Amino acid sequence: MNNRNSPKHVVIVGGGFAGLGCARHLSSKNEVRVTLIDKNNYHQFQPLLYQVATSLLAPDDVAVSFRNLFRKHPNVDVKEAEVVSADPVAKTVTTSSGEVYQGDYLILAAGSQPNFFRTSGAEEYSFPLYSLNDAERLRSRILKVFEDADRNPAIIDQGALNFVIVGAGPTGTEMAGTLAEMIHHTMSAEYKDLKVTAARVYLIDHGHAVLGSFSERAHEYAARVLKRDGVQIRLGTSVQEIGPGHVVLSDGTKIMTHVVIWGGGLKAAPLAANVGLPVGRSGRVDVRPDLTVEDFPGVYVLGDFANIPSPDGGLHPQLGSVALQTGTWAAQHILSEIKSIAHWPFHYHDKGIMAMIGRNAAIAEIGEHRHELYGPGAFAAWLGVHAYLMSGMRHRIDAYVEWAWDYILRSPGSQVLDRSDAARIDWGEDDHNEGQETSQEEKT
Amino acid sequence: MNNRNSPKHVVIVGGGFAGLGCARHLSSKNEVRVTLIDKNNYHQFQPLLYQVATSLLAPDDVAVSFRNLFRKHPNVDVKEAEVVSADPVAKTVTTSSGEVYQGDYLILAAGSQPNFFRTSGAEEYSFPLYSLNDAERLRSRILKVFEDADRNPAIIDQGALNFVIVGAGPTGTEMAGTLAEMIHHTMSAEYKDLKVTAARVYLIDHGHAVLGSFSERAHEYAARVLKRDGVQIRLGTSVQEIGPGHVVLSDGTKIMTHVVIWGGGLKAAPLAANVGLPVGRSGRVDVRPDLTVEDFPGVYVLGDFANIPSPDGGLHPQLGSVALQTGTWAAQHILSEIKSIAHWPFHYHDKGIMAMIGRNAAIAEIGEHRHELYGPGAFAAWLGVHAYLMSGMRHRIDAYVEWAWDYILRSPGSQVLDRSDAARIDWGEDDHNEGQETSQEEKT
Repeated sequence: MNNRNSPKHVVIVGGGFAGLGCARHLSSKNEVRVTLIDKNNYHQFQPLLYQVATSLLAPDDVAVSFRNLFRKHPNVDVKEAEVVSADPVAKTVTTSSGEVYQGDYLILAAGSQPNFFRTSGAEEYSFPLYSLNDAERLRSRILKVFEDADRNPAIIDQGALNFVIVGAGPTGTEMAGTLAEMIHHTMSAEYKDLKVTAARVYLIDHGHAVLGSFSERAHEYAARVLKRDGVQIRLGTSVQEIGPGHVVLSDGTKIMTHVVIWGGGLKAAPLAANVGLPVGRSGRVDVRPDLTVEDFPGVYVLGDFANIPSPDGGLHPQLGSVALQTGTWAAQHILSEIKSIAHWPFHYHDKGIMAMIGRNAAIAEIGEHRHELYGPGAFAAWLGVHAYLMSGMRHRIDAYVEWAWDYILRSPGSQVLDRSDAARIDWGEDDHNEGQETSQEEKT
Repeated sequence: MNNRNSPKHVVIVGGGFAGLGCARHLSSKNEVRVTLIDKNNYHQFQPLLYQVATSLLAPDDVAVSFRNLFRKHPNVDVKEAEVVSADPVAKTVTTSSGEVYQGDYLILAAGSQPNFFRTSGAEEYSFPLYSLNDAERLRSRILKVFEDADRNPAIIDQGALNFVIVGAGPTGTEMAGTLAEMIHHTMSAEYKDLKVTAARVYLIDHGHAVLGSFSERAHEYAARVLKRDGVQIRLGTSVQEIGPGHVVLSDGTKIMTHVVIWGGGLKAAPLAANVGLPVGRSGRVDVRPDLTVEDFPGVYVLGDFANIPSPDGGLHPQLGSVALQTGTWAAQHILSEIKSIAHWPFHYHDKGIMAMIGRNAAIAEIGEHRHELYGPGAFAAWLGVHAYLMSGMRHRIDAYVEWAWDYILRSPGSQVLDRSDAARIDWGEDDHNEGQETSQEEKT
């Protein structure tokens, strides 16, 4: 290992599934040292943010500190900073406070932001659900309207208990189902003199199906479950205007509401416009099948931040599993490149898609052939997958129960004791190779 | 039980140890219905806020939703509102949004706020540690200065890693000890290219002892432990001025710092000035030994909100255990009054005081005779007591581990699923009488 004395520097911008997956795979590899830069000091587990918004999980349950994760990996350093521009030739990035980081390799994985599609009032008056901050703001808002209505029931007639969700993709659909259950089961038990039955959840989508990216049977199943739980579904309808107390739909309907939740789409994070690379659809960087851009060797663009061509001529969807796999792939590729092994294209192993609509009600379309599962079976599968993905965060529980003993025995310091074992979160197959050399042949 | 058809209405202002203790004792009692009003929708477990500030516990670990706590008690209703005034004759309270609540009994337990003693700049530039919001703000601040210094080490010379704690009472002392350990054990492991050893913790007090309310041996023990952990102690010294980047002490010393933590004392919450009752020391309501005020029958003032005479001619200290006991006492007294049983004075059962200074280092002075314990034994006692007090919150862990199953089996709705079992938090002896009639004779 003659690179031991001069490890290559890998600068990673963004600690979502893609950036973190990459950093995890490179940790403990002697050939590289890593600087992971993120505007937060924690990774947020995006797929469960809607559970934070509906008070099923606490914010700290879906966040894990980067420094804690890499505490035992001396070759990974973390910087909390907002990157505002990048130079793909010099392979430098610049932060909002002016620091510059230069790498031998540059990984751009800054993710997405909500896309409001210039809908009037959407940015001012709706609640997106993309970051942990978003989820906490939305949680406060939902609880606040219930408390306000409890003290002053007159505002129910002004729509205080109407919740309008824009977009029937996975985020909007999961939010609609969970919110409906929260209202009917939790709020009705906890508010003793509030007419909780007056609450309404609306799910609006301009397309003609709930969970449009799923199969036709899934569309029907999801719609049936949501209707059973009282959700009002308006398909083929877009939102024309959002105001401080109402929305106006494309068919002219006006719905009075104090909470509009925006699940209407994503576009690239603003950084994409300042990295000196060509951008395409939704403002994302257009990359080649090997996640690089012509003329800029050593620069990789990952996950949601890129438009990644798929073998069928289209683009890979914006999914956590795609992002995670691009991260692992880029890490493997860099390690091979250091040894001068030739390039090979990114290949997405499609394990399927899932959505949880309510208790016992979920949809799982498994594998590339989309084996379909509905209802309790799919719900069990959903639980299993998330239990697996969140195993680190579930470990935190044991850590918490044991905190007294840790404390006495002076366990390895941990900034967030009740998250300490979250460091062991499983990032796909990556974990099993921990500390080993991974060759191209093994993985492709 | 001929009051069953017309239960007396008890309005409780404040859901701290006193108000919540009272509400808990009255829940499931047919003679009364309770309205508990608090400006937050959750109870905060004040004694462990410093652990939130130092990232040892998550904010949701020390908060529990009132509605969740009283979910199964139809005679207790909760209102999230800020009470701005009270009329002790009409027994009404008015909220900031204008709602009025009237009771047959009125319980004022609105607690304290930080007392800055007109120290120049203290309110603008220091971080108090009294509410969960305070703890979260302080946590963010502490993490931020480390992140800032990590990116820009030059600011260390401007005092970025100096932490100044004002007040060596339990809050300040526990904070100093925990912060010093956080720095030396956690931060030094997590920050790879930051000179963490440059960090300093200062503990300032105008008195001549650390933990002045404890015994002399405790003073020495606490000081020794803190010094061992590198804390700089400045006794007989007050703070003259706090600025955005410094403090000036009474001996003229200027300490550069970006974080000043205020543990300098408490006074009554602002409501005390607007309840039409006589106030005394620290703005608290002066009450008689039965926690009432002459001429205002049916109005009880509890916990930190009152100056409560003790049998020795002084006042009871502002302690959680005093507050909790006043709450239980008032509840018992009201139940007896409904049955026309005569008055008796509040008696505080002094179970002792404790402080945790660091791992294996604590002080416990047990019982009225102050049996003293130091070091690992006291630390074990501290852990035991807090494990007991927080048992509900520790139960939430089990709830969390089981959430998948709860979810499938449609357990009783819970607004904060991972807190659901926190409803079972033990509020002293109260719990064992759950649902039973408690007579005066049994309890005094």
